[in-house]
Amino acid sequence: MDFTEIAKQAKEASLLTAGLNAQIKNSALNSMADAIEMAKDEIFSANKVDLELAEPLVESGELSKATFNRLKLDENKMRDMIAGIREIAKLPDPVNKKLLVRELDEGLTLYKVSCPIGVLGIIFEARPDVISQISSLAIKSSNAVILKGGKETTNTNKKILEIINTALDKVEGFPKNVIQQVFTRDDVAEMLKCDKYINLIIPRGGNSLVKFIKENTKIPVLGHADGICHIFVDESADLLTAEKIITDAKTQYPSACNSVETLLIHEKFPHKDELLAALQLEEIKLIDKPESWAHEYGDKILAFKTVKNLDKAIAHINRYGSGHTDCIITKNIENAEKFMNNVDSAGVYFNVSTRFADGFRYGFGAEVGISTNKTHARGPVGLEGLTIYKYKLIGNGQVVSDYVEGRKQFHHKDLT
Amino acid sequence: MDFTEIAKQAKEASLLTAGLNAQIKNSALNSMADAIEMAKDEIFSANKVDLELAEPLVESGELSKATFNRLKLDENKMRDMIAGIREIAKLPDPVNKKLLVRELDEGLTLYKVSCPIGVLGIIFEARPDVISQISSLAIKSSNAVILKGGKETTNTNKKILEIINTALDKVEGFPKNVIQQVFTRDDVAEMLKCDKYINLIIPRGGNSLVKFIKENTKIPVLGHADGICHIFVDESADLLTAEKIITDAKTQYPSACNSVETLLIHEKFPHKDELLAALQLEEIKLIDKPESWAHEYGDKILAFKTVKNLDKAIAHINRYGSGHTDCIITKNIENAEKFMNNVDSAGVYFNVSTRFADGFRYGFGAEVGISTNKTHARGPVGLEGLTIYKYKLIGNGQVVSDYVEGRKQFHHKDLT
Repeated sequence: MDFTEIAKQAKEASLLTAGLNAQIKNSALNSMADAIEMAKDEIFSANKVDLELAEPLVESGELSKATFNRLKLDENKMRDMIAGIREIAKLPDPVNKKLLVRELDEGLTLYKVSCPIGVLGIIFEARPDVISQISSLAIKSSNAVILKGGKETTNTNKKILEIINTALDKVEGFPKNVIQQVFTRDDVAEMLKCDKYINLIIPRGGNSLVKFIKENTKIPVLGHADGICHIFVDESADLLTAEKIITDAKTQYPSACNSVETLLIHEKFPHKDELLAALQLEEIKLIDKPESWAHEYGDKILAFKTVKNLDKAIAHINRYGSGHTDCIITKNIENAEKFMNNVDSAGVYFNVSTRFADGFRYGFGAEVGISTNKTHARGPVGLEGLTIYKYKLIGNGQVVSDYVEGRKQFHHKDLT
Repeated sequence: MDFTEIAKQAKEASLLTAGLNAQIKNSALNSMADAIEMAKDEIFSANKVDLELAEPLVESGELSKATFNRLKLDENKMRDMIAGIREIAKLPDPVNKKLLVRELDEGLTLYKVSCPIGVLGIIFEARPDVISQISSLAIKSSNAVILKGGKETTNTNKKILEIINTALDKVEGFPKNVIQQVFTRDDVAEMLKCDKYINLIIPRGGNSLVKFIKENTKIPVLGHADGICHIFVDESADLLTAEKIITDAKTQYPSACNSVETLLIHEKFPHKDELLAALQLEEIKLIDKPESWAHEYGDKILAFKTVKNLDKAIAHINRYGSGHTDCIITKNIENAEKFMNNVDSAGVYFNVSTRFADGFRYGFGAEVGISTNKTHARGPVGLEGLTIYKYKLIGNGQVVSDYVEGRKQFHHKDLT
């Protein structure tokens, strides 16, 4: 089918999902989970086809062994996938929340109410457990979605979506075409141009993909290209705290976007040599003359630099950072406050590992991704980031001329 | 100066304003107001130059008489302008508000705190009273701003900004280059490309300007191109209520974006002929075969159509509307609820004039504009729309490995 036709169907579906109540959405989610559980074997078979197609690519070097391992769906991933859908069903409905109730005048009440964004375009990595997660988030937030998964999991994704949509078809009152899927690069190109129907694009996966998308569409994009996180060790930092935090932030999962890439050390910090020696013992490779201060290593490599003072550290981070997550280690609370106010990043941390930047760790229940945007949603994004709001104004015949001509006055009284 | 240089200075200024407390910002605002009051005569002289340059354009027909009248600064506008700045100083600080405080674990607390967006690019109509208003909103929200006003008020704007910046220079602790101004079309073209430094563009003024900007930048744009508002008269609507609301929505200020453009009438509404006759008595020109259902007349002209039922009305609005403000007139609460949930607009109204869609009427104290975006801010936008948030995480040496390896557990306890 033509992409525009798919997008138009998604738009029409989104107008219907906007009116769904939480009960229908949750019953849709639970039906999805049940259906996937019932059809486990079919899904494993489809995944096997993907794995067989990928094997020669690993042999020829076109596909890394790590990527190949991510393609493989096993019993554990399947169990987590099904449990994940049921967890999202249990979360509070992000839609229809009253964000403000204000009586403008007697009998004239304004409600600011959360509502879905509309149509999401989501482009994601080749991991067979992601499609059910994203579909669940879209349903829970009353959005329609067009999915484009990594091509190496095409067969698995097709099978899973077929099962999901068969299950959704049976849910009374649940609209058609809420979850649709496309497969080609041309579809992605069309998606980026389709601002008439698509309201938000969320790319997940590698930096270059996200960068490409951000640079090639006028549709709002939620995500982050780089994760160039910093830790600044202040003059008064505790040595053991610094060692522990930096080691965690660099080695606990080096390829994560919230891992630290650059260490800045105050020139008067008295334990610099001990700290660097301790980090080397943790098998961290230290570099003091990096080719660029804006590089994401994604490995146990850490650039480091001595800075004159707090202001220089803040300036370095605002210049070379990616606005993701940056940390100060200090005993000086005033310095910590200045750092947290003046570093322009989604996460500004005080004596704590950058690896905490994560929707689940923040207690959001589900994570759409991490955003370095300066509008809409920033940092780890939960279901709330998939909503916007509308204003409902309820009256009994009020007209503006009465207020402009002084016969009536607003009293703007907030109700709970 | 080169535009990129101006934008870079704005970025640097924005990193400093982010850390300003409310007291400095409010004293900056009050100094601005005082300085403008002191220099009133200088401003009137500069405005006179603009008026003299505009006069021949009115004679040659290049400038409308209405636009010319808007250029003119008189004592009333001057008084409102100065009062407006002082009003903004009195509003609560939109920055540094705690939006969430959550203990993730003992001694590990997450704060979601409102903060400025960064650098705003604001393009506005030729009205000499707007520059101080926008500058005040930028200061209050701790953003830096690059202004481009309508060319017919260049002299007035130059003079006002000179006075503002001289006043700001004397405010201790207030950074330089927070408010800058550019003048040419080339500057606007550069602004639209400058996504490295500019975080949000707000175009104010005519539809074609807003459309052009939305189509020519990747920077987020806050605003609305069209205001194609609808009123649906349901089967059970009260005739007098309908007459009163439609008359207000069409005639109180026909060129406003929240004026109604299309009237939809339920085919079983029993008083259709009386209603249309009453509207004609109010000098509203009724059109039943418009060239397009998506046209903004901005005049006392109203397109109208009979529809079969509520669903057809909703479908018409979602197809031809601009997502601005739409109203249902009915006695049936269920229909009103369905309308408000399923019409995909920033404002969905029940028995009330569309003309209420306005930041001041909503009680926001100040208005940046009205947005038909589906992300970030929607509907009338107050100071809150000029902010985003950051996450501050404060701990005492916590690392992620303790939680991943099961030695510690999150307890996610929301604090007030």
